Amino acid sequence: MNPITRVAVVGGTHGNELTGIYLVKKFEQLPHLIRRSSFESIALLANPKAYELRRRYVDLDLNRCFRPQDLENPHLTSYEALQAKKIYQDLTANQTEQIGLLMDLHSTTANMGMTLILNHQHPFNLHLAAHLAAVYPEVKFYRWAQAEQDSPFLRSIYPLGCAIEVGPVAQGLLDAHLFRQTEALIHTILDYVEAYNRGQLFPTKETLTVYQCVQTIDYPRDGLGTMQAMIHPNLQSRDYEPLYPGDPMFLTFEGETIVYEGESILYPVFINEAAYYEKGIAMCLTHKELVTL
Amino acid sequence: MNPITRVAVVGGTHGNELTGIYLVKKFEQLPHLIRRSSFESIALLANPKAYELRRRYVDLDLNRCFRPQDLENPHLTSYEALQAKKIYQDLTANQTEQIGLLMDLHSTTANMGMTLILNHQHPFNLHLAAHLAAVYPEVKFYRWAQAEQDSPFLRSIYPLGCAIEVGPVAQGLLDAHLFRQTEALIHTILDYVEAYNRGQLFPTKETLTVYQCVQTIDYPRDGLGTMQAMIHPNLQSRDYEPLYPGDPMFLTFEGETIVYEGESILYPVFINEAAYYEKGIAMCLTHKELVTL
Repeated sequence: MNPITRVAVVGGTHGNELTGIYLVKKFEQLPHLIRRSSFESIALLANPKAYELRRRYVDLDLNRCFRPQDLENPHLTSYEALQAKKIYQDLTANQTEQIGLLMDLHSTTANMGMTLILNHQHPFNLHLAAHLAAVYPEVKFYRWAQAEQDSPFLRSIYPLGCAIEVGPVAQGLLDAHLFRQTEALIHTILDYVEAYNRGQLFPTKETLTVYQCVQTIDYPRDGLGTMQAMIHPNLQSRDYEPLYPGDPMFLTFEGETIVYEGESILYPVFINEAAYYEKGIAMCLTHKELVTL
Repeated sequence: MNPITRVAVVGGTHGNELTGIYLVKKFEQLPHLIRRSSFESIALLANPKAYELRRRYVDLDLNRCFRPQDLENPHLTSYEALQAKKIYQDLTANQTEQIGLLMDLHSTTANMGMTLILNHQHPFNLHLAAHLAAVYPEVKFYRWAQAEQDSPFLRSIYPLGCAIEVGPVAQGLLDAHLFRQTEALIHTILDYVEAYNRGQLFPTKETLTVYQCVQTIDYPRDGLGTMQAMIHPNLQSRDYEPLYPGDPMFLTFEGETIVYEGESILYPVFINEAAYYEKGIAMCLTHKELVTL
């Protein structure tokens, strides 16, 4: 692979996830912090209008607007659809034969600690992840189930990169500890790209533990879609811990426990993510997989 | 004092604080749960439109719309101003010579556990609080600095009652543990009112610890109002713990610590409440006071 020529640090894809927004503001004011000698660095606030309104989005979730067919569809004219086209054009301008890496900074109300969401199967991403796993043993690696060629996510603009999810943190506020952890992770990624471009090799492990989403679970609902239960207290905040058949999953408002009826041990993440209530996702069940690099 | 004739349990004064909203939905479906023999019970969802939009409010904070002069002002026509007038009319209809008690259910992103916010100096409220303190030693009691005669809060519709704040919980999600704790507290209050109406006396302590707000502190900001710092990690989640002169208070985005420069020991609460960023409140500093009943 050729050298990486451009690295984009994107925050505020969701306007109420302040960690990434304030990091991008910082990098805009102090651009030398993300500058390295071998590539161009860009800091981008992705959804400024949603941030101004203190909301996740204005019309619809910006981080579901980046399917290639949607970017080319002139009939999509919501604020976020237009913003997605603008971001795509800005980030891919003058990019012929260039290689970009993108970090999209998110936060979650789930107890997911520091999580890297890997988008592509590109070997570089896996080696970067393995390096981060060596530096930060507490960082987890997650993959959605979606097919790669049709990804709606902002981070899929570039072949390389990831989303960084940090939590638990409520929407609309800053947690200084998570702010600093995220910032440290960004610098480690920038340094890794710089070393890669200079032909330096980091020795890394040969395997990486990846949590692969295999199923999303909705809250129990009645015929009108009204929620009938909440995450069971025994499951709350237990992201990345094994869920065994028969374990409590939900608690109805009347106090009845609903158990996990699957047949295999899975690892729930995004447990009780506030932004996913409207998406019909109470949690994502993952396989814990050992990927060989 | 005459018997209490009506008790209102209000949720969703803020449309993204789901604990109270789902408790009210439950009580609407199962009204016998809040029914007692000696008074009328009402469950009320205060801001249904904001709840539908998954937001704190539509136009402005409903819980600042209940000043007597605002309720009588025909020129105030925002959604929340009109909703406040409607709620006031509904809750005070046929109330001549009657006495009402109101519980307004809120949640906070601050680590405040179970907190009762006392509105009035009415002796009944203090005795109720002392009873709750005996049943639930972990419950805290808080008072805002505002003068009573000009209260903008929904709970001030009735002479008796309180707001119940539970946290930490992110906006827009349900925490089953806090849901159940809040429900238990409501039942204890209902039982107390029932016992009072029946002339039963609960022996309570003669004193009550109350955290009295004496000052609110804003985030450090530049001339344009842009935040320059976040809550210091050492202070995060330390609600109700003593803050000593010289203790870290904020951390700038560049990593500089800003300390508490006051001269007396105070007890911060509402530390890093997401809804208060726009109000210019990073925390409320309180005096810890021993009130004699």
